[in-house]
Amino acid sequence: MDTTRLSLNQATVRPLTLAQTLRLCARHQIPAVGLWRESIAAAGLADAAAAVRRSGLHVSSLCRGGFFTHADPAAREAARSDNLAAIEEASVLAADVLVLVSGGLVAGSRDLGAARRMIADAIAELVPRARDLGVLLGIESLHPMFCADRCVLSRLGDAVDLALTFPADAVGVVVDTYNIWWDSRAGADIARAAGRIAGYQLGDWVVPLPRDMLLGRGHLGDGAIDFPSITEHVLAAGYDGFAEVEIFNQQVWDAPPDDTAATVKERFAGVLGPVPWRGAGTG
Amino acid sequence: MDTTRLSLNQATVRPLTLAQTLRLCARHQIPAVGLWRESIAAAGLADAAAAVRRSGLHVSSLCRGGFFTHADPAAREAARSDNLAAIEEASVLAADVLVLVSGGLVAGSRDLGAARRMIADAIAELVPRARDLGVLLGIESLHPMFCADRCVLSRLGDAVDLALTFPADAVGVVVDTYNIWWDSRAGADIARAAGRIAGYQLGDWVVPLPRDMLLGRGHLGDGAIDFPSITEHVLAAGYDGFAEVEIFNQQVWDAPPDDTAATVKERFAGVLGPVPWRGAGTG
Repeated sequence: MDTTRLSLNQATVRPLTLAQTLRLCARHQIPAVGLWRESIAAAGLADAAAAVRRSGLHVSSLCRGGFFTHADPAAREAARSDNLAAIEEASVLAADVLVLVSGGLVAGSRDLGAARRMIADAIAELVPRARDLGVLLGIESLHPMFCADRCVLSRLGDAVDLALTFPADAVGVVVDTYNIWWDSRAGADIARAAGRIAGYQLGDWVVPLPRDMLLGRGHLGDGAIDFPSITEHVLAAGYDGFAEVEIFNQQVWDAPPDDTAATVKERFAGVLGPVPWRGAGTG
Repeated sequence: MDTTRLSLNQATVRPLTLAQTLRLCARHQIPAVGLWRESIAAAGLADAAAAVRRSGLHVSSLCRGGFFTHADPAAREAARSDNLAAIEEASVLAADVLVLVSGGLVAGSRDLGAARRMIADAIAELVPRARDLGVLLGIESLHPMFCADRCVLSRLGDAVDLALTFPADAVGVVVDTYNIWWDSRAGADIARAAGRIAGYQLGDWVVPLPRDMLLGRGHLGDGAIDFPSITEHVLAAGYDGFAEVEIFNQQVWDAPPDDTAATVKERFAGVLGPVPWRGAGTG
C-alpha cells in the first residue's frame, strides 16, 4: 500500500470549503491536493496560499484555465485575461500545473480545425507569462462526448500534438483516465508525451452514465477502466508527479467527506497497489 | 438538390412496421432503405424480402450483427449462430452490407485488447459464410461513450485496422458521422478505408445529449457535425453507395412519419446539396 503519490482533487469533495478540504487531507494523511479556482477566489488568493502552505500539502494542480474558443474578439480577450489571472494564481499557490480545458466549437461554427487553431493561438499568447512565473500549462483532452461544447481536443494525441509545438518547460499535457481510457492509441500517445506529462488524474467510468454526463465518474474500481495498465504507461513515460483522484459524482458529494477520503485512499492503494510509483524501475 | 443516394434507416421511423416504412419511402421518393432485423423477423424473412422487392427500394444495409464479446463459450456460440442467421437474412434481402456492432468489454473484464481480439476471432469465423453468400460485413466503430457496454472499437481507425486484416470482398467498415465526427484522425482514417467503406450513416450530434445517450441523434443540421466535410472524405475514398439517415430520437419517433420523411429529405438536400454524389469528380 503506497499512497505517497496520492492527491485529492477538490472536485471529489465539492461541498467542502478550501479550509475543510485541507483539514480532510491532513486527517487522512493524503499528501497533496488539486485545487479549484472557485474555492481559491472564495477564500482570497493570499489567504488561500497561506492556508495551503500551513497545511504542508503539495498542490498537484490548479483547475482550471482554458475555454479559449469564442467568435467575439472581446470574449477572446476576456478569456486571455482570465487565463493570465489563473497563471498568477497557479504561481502563488505553487501548483505543479495549471490545467487547461480548451473549449468546444465556436458558437455557430462546425469547424473543428478552426477551433483547434484558435486554441493553439491562445496558448501561444500565454506561454511567455507562464514561463516568467514558472507555471506549467497542462493541456487536457476531454472525452469525445464533450467535443461540441467543452473541448475539441478529444484524443490525448490531440493534446500531445499541440503541447509538442511549445517549449517543454511551459506546456505539457494532463492525462485523465476518464477521458482517454477507451482510446486504442492511448498507450502510444502517453509514450509520445514522455517528458510532457504535467498531471495525472484518476476517475472511473461507471455504466450506465447518469443524466448529467459531467457527473458520471466513479470511485476507482467501480467501473470499466484498467488503471494499472494506464498508470504503467504514464510511469514508463517518466512521470513522477502526483496522481489526483477527481470524481464528479452527486452520490459521492452527498456522502460524508471522511467516508469519501477513506474510500479514495483505500481504492487508490487497492487498485494501484501493485504499481511501482516514482518510476517503473524503482518500485 | 440531389437525393438519389438518400436512404432512410428504419430506426429513424422506429414506430412503423416494415410495410409502413416501405410505403413511406415510396410516398417521399426516397430510393433506399436501411432495415433492422427485428422488423424483418416480425414480418417473416420471405415475406419481408418479397415486400422489399415489390417496393423497388434498394436495401442499403441490414442492422445488425455483432455483440461478439462474451466470457461464456456458450454465449459466444449463440452469438455466432445469430450472426450466421443475420448473414443469411442480409443475403436474402440483398442488403449492401450487414452492419456489425461488435460488443463492449467482456463482463467482469477491463481488458480492451482481449475484447478486441475476441471480435477479430469472431469475425474471422463468419467470413467464409459471408463470402459464400456474397454478403459484405461492415464493422462500425461506435462513439467512445459506448466503449464499455456496446463496442470497444471506438475510433474509425480501430474498425479500419480490423477490416484490413480480412479480404475486401468480405469485410469493410461502416462510417457513421455521429460516432466519428469528433475525431481529428477521421479524415485520414476514411482515406485509409478507401475501397473498404461498406456503408455510410448520417445523424447529427445535438447538445445537450438527452438522458438516454442512445437517443441523442438529431436531424441533419440540428447539431454540431460538419456533414459536407465528412462526406467529401467519404466520396474521395471512392464510396459510391447510399447515405442512410439514421436518427435515434424520441421526439423524432413521436412526430408524424410523413413529417419526418419530409424533413430527412429536405435536410439531406440542404445540408449535403453542394456535395457531388457519385464520386467527388463527377458532380
